[in-house]
Amino acid sequence: MGCRCCKRRKESQELTNVERSIEILINNFHCYAMKGRKECLTPGELKDLVGQRLPHLAKGAVMLEEKIECLGDNDEAKLQFGEYWDIMGDAAKGCRVPGGKK
Amino acid sequence: MGCRCCKRRKESQELTNVERSIEILINNFHCYAMKGRKECLTPGELKDLVGQRLPHLAKGAVMLEEKIECLGDNDEAKLQFGEYWDIMGDAAKGCRVPGGKK
Repeated sequence: MGCRCCKRRKESQELTNVERSIEILINNFHCYAMKGRKECLTPGELKDLVGQRLPHLAKGAVMLEEKIECLGDNDEAKLQFGEYWDIMGDAAKGCRVPGGKK
Repeated sequence: MGCRCCKRRKESQELTNVERSIEILINNFHCYAMKGRKECLTPGELKDLVGQRLPHLAKGAVMLEEKIECLGDNDEAKLQFGEYWDIMGDAAKGCRVPGGKK
């Protein structure tokens, strides 16, 4: 899936790199939240997102793998933005290299 | 504060834009975690980070403002990476424009 729905804020050019990064993560959520309400991801959509957009960081992120496994395949289940953000945090915790520790 | 400590993974050029965004957020944490252990932010460091790196997104992020206010100025207090990630999530929730809703 090519993610092309980068709806940008008008003042996007003024954002810092940290703000742009947050904006990319927000846009990514909305790119994959296609079924039903656009405010939620189904487990299948989340799995597609992780497989396609986190191919490197998902490796070795144990908590992330466990959470995704627990989600099952029920497309009635809905993940809110906060849950998606937590899952991205699990990927981040799994790959924190700068401090030399995980 | 100019953030120049971008320690990059060797395979950085292969990362997706979502992975690069997560990496930027990780590096940003370590750039500001200067005092004491590099694995934690003091409330003062977090305030500097939000003021300098989230000048636009922090505006209107009510939960973010409230959390920062509650932190006080005690430099003995330490924020772990998970708490920093939650705070970045509050900024994200405060500025979610693509879905048309907050």
